[in-house]
Amino acid sequence: MNAPLPNTQQGMRRRNLSLVMHAVAGHGPLSRAGVAGRIGLTRAAVSSLVDELIRGGLLVELGREQSGAVGRPGSALSLSCRGPVGIGAEIGVDHLAVCAVDLHGKVRARASAQADHRGRPAEPVLKELAELIRQVTEAARAEGLRPAGIAVAVPGLVARDTQTVVRAPNLGWEDIDLGDSLPYGVQLSVDNEANLGALAELWIGGDPAPQDFVHVSAEIGIGAAVVVEGRLLRGTHGYAGELGHVPVRPEGPACACGGRGCLEQYAGEEAVLRAAGLTATGRGVDLLAARAADGDRTVRRALSTAGAALGIALAGTVNLLDPQAVILGGALSRLAPWLLPSLERELTRRTAEPARPTLTVSRLGSEGPLLGAAHSVVRAVLDDPSSYAA
Amino acid sequence: MNAPLPNTQQGMRRRNLSLVMHAVAGHGPLSRAGVAGRIGLTRAAVSSLVDELIRGGLLVELGREQSGAVGRPGSALSLSCRGPVGIGAEIGVDHLAVCAVDLHGKVRARASAQADHRGRPAEPVLKELAELIRQVTEAARAEGLRPAGIAVAVPGLVARDTQTVVRAPNLGWEDIDLGDSLPYGVQLSVDNEANLGALAELWIGGDPAPQDFVHVSAEIGIGAAVVVEGRLLRGTHGYAGELGHVPVRPEGPACACGGRGCLEQYAGEEAVLRAAGLTATGRGVDLLAARAADGDRTVRRALSTAGAALGIALAGTVNLLDPQAVILGGALSRLAPWLLPSLERELTRRTAEPARPTLTVSRLGSEGPLLGAAHSVVRAVLDDPSSYAA
Repeated sequence: MNAPLPNTQQGMRRRNLSLVMHAVAGHGPLSRAGVAGRIGLTRAAVSSLVDELIRGGLLVELGREQSGAVGRPGSALSLSCRGPVGIGAEIGVDHLAVCAVDLHGKVRARASAQADHRGRPAEPVLKELAELIRQVTEAARAEGLRPAGIAVAVPGLVARDTQTVVRAPNLGWEDIDLGDSLPYGVQLSVDNEANLGALAELWIGGDPAPQDFVHVSAEIGIGAAVVVEGRLLRGTHGYAGELGHVPVRPEGPACACGGRGCLEQYAGEEAVLRAAGLTATGRGVDLLAARAADGDRTVRRALSTAGAALGIALAGTVNLLDPQAVILGGALSRLAPWLLPSLERELTRRTAEPARPTLTVSRLGSEGPLLGAAHSVVRAVLDDPSSYAA
Repeated sequence: MNAPLPNTQQGMRRRNLSLVMHAVAGHGPLSRAGVAGRIGLTRAAVSSLVDELIRGGLLVELGREQSGAVGRPGSALSLSCRGPVGIGAEIGVDHLAVCAVDLHGKVRARASAQADHRGRPAEPVLKELAELIRQVTEAARAEGLRPAGIAVAVPGLVARDTQTVVRAPNLGWEDIDLGDSLPYGVQLSVDNEANLGALAELWIGGDPAPQDFVHVSAEIGIGAAVVVEGRLLRGTHGYAGELGHVPVRPEGPACACGGRGCLEQYAGEEAVLRAAGLTATGRGVDLLAARAADGDRTVRRALSTAGAALGIALAGTVNLLDPQAVILGGALSRLAPWLLPSLERELTRRTAEPARPTLTVSRLGSEGPLLGAAHSVVRAVLDDPSSYAA
């Protein structure tokens, strides 16, 4: 979200302010000496940085801390509970959601609305979203918090470094610039929901979170995001992660993308419902999960076939990228019990032992993209705190 | 190759020394003012950095340069032709090669030997390689150059951040530590040949070189390397890029890896020779290229089938990674005329237009890995020059 800092005295100070914020965020409360020990700067240098961050409303002193060491006791530093908050928003196919997350990662306010957005024009949907953002922003301000930015998760392709949804097939949107409809006086960023779900996994999903992983999620289509050394791989145009269009059987059924036998033709919601002989009126994943839990053999067989196709596509992905982990998120996390056995079987037979990743199910589930959006703003504050000082 | 530099005064100076070296390497000869303009530091700061680099034998002054601007003319700075050199080495299935590349990227010495290494134990092969390295090193020293490090390209998996060849199936090697056999008193690094071929592409392959690409090469097996934002994606264990084991037809022929229908079963040298009804006594690629050039229909058909399989595997790769370019290198660059039509057809029908990458053939061909190895040492010098000052 931030531009790289220049290699000057000022740039170095900004980087060091960020190191202090990250040290306190990751290991706080910490004394000044504790921060100095962690980031490898002198106590005097750290004190000057800490004073600036306290003045900027980003750090607070919790009061004197009794230290066991000789010398005057240090006061413990913590991130401010009344400083900046990140506003996360999510446009789903059947819902809208907004939340405010503080520097501690705590959700301080939220609002949501159910509605079927398939084929609805963007304008009224964005108007409703703007109203939810207004509510959450006001609730945050009432608690003395300052919105530092808004990030929106959308189920579609977003051109890199823009606010434009190029294509969201399940909404029926094309070339919608969210910057036109969500003017708030704070920075607005827009990203694909699979990307933000993966970032949530990286930032708050595990302890310790893997730094190299493939995160697979599904709502109606199948999306994935690749994280390498703790950074999201976005692709040249911002369209990386289209796992749903990896060929599974090159002469398989025709896909809307123009290809044949894409993963989505075997493991997408529509394909699984069809294989299970079902028509969903509400959310397809709810129906599939309920029937599978009830022991419906046809549904379980359909999910097993989908799992095998996922395993084949992921085997190719693993051979290419050698990730530490594959994480099933979003709707897939609810269907995991019936997808995993066949998925794991294909993945195991098609990848070499030394490079085989762990296979896990996200703890965040369908909350991932919304939390990832809010946390992306919080991370921007930690990464360059001086830009967000009061 | 270098550890990240700390965020201190000394770390900042080392980073700025590197900025100066890269500015002169990319745009030299340059005056001090020219360098200052490019890297955004003051003329005084740059002069102090330049003086240190001249003292270290890394930069030279070419003499006074007539500038059009008012003020005293600046002297033009250039990289030293008598400074450090990178020693690159390559262990091929049927050859050994070593070269020395100076800071300008010029090959200053080279040596090579042909031999069939299939099934030969590592020890005598490495002994021959050590002798070639000695010859090239002595030739470089005779020209006043200083070897700054040795990098070795191997046709196999190398565990990340080690000197160990974990598995090189076409040599028959397992768990060979090259550090035991190549002791030279300078830093030794070992890497997979596909990785070094891709890095060569990044550093010297094009003008401007793409920063996000997939580089596909072949010797006996099929290897690939993924470069993202100018950095090689190595994978958690160092095994990324195993394109040869991406499933093309999940129920296809059994592969030595334990899977079925892997790309190597359709586009690997052995599979193509078999489909063409040929048995190679020498290099398979030479035979295939000669027959295809002669218009042999069976060989051309076999190469077309291989190209289609490559296109299917690469379509999945492109959907996942959204690279700017796909580059065919190594032996594939020689076979490109007969692979490309079917490859491009599959890639086009299976990828969406806005994310479709350019498809090119490497100019470096089979020289890529050797040059990449030598240049990896040169880049280490540019990235942290103070560690390599005389």
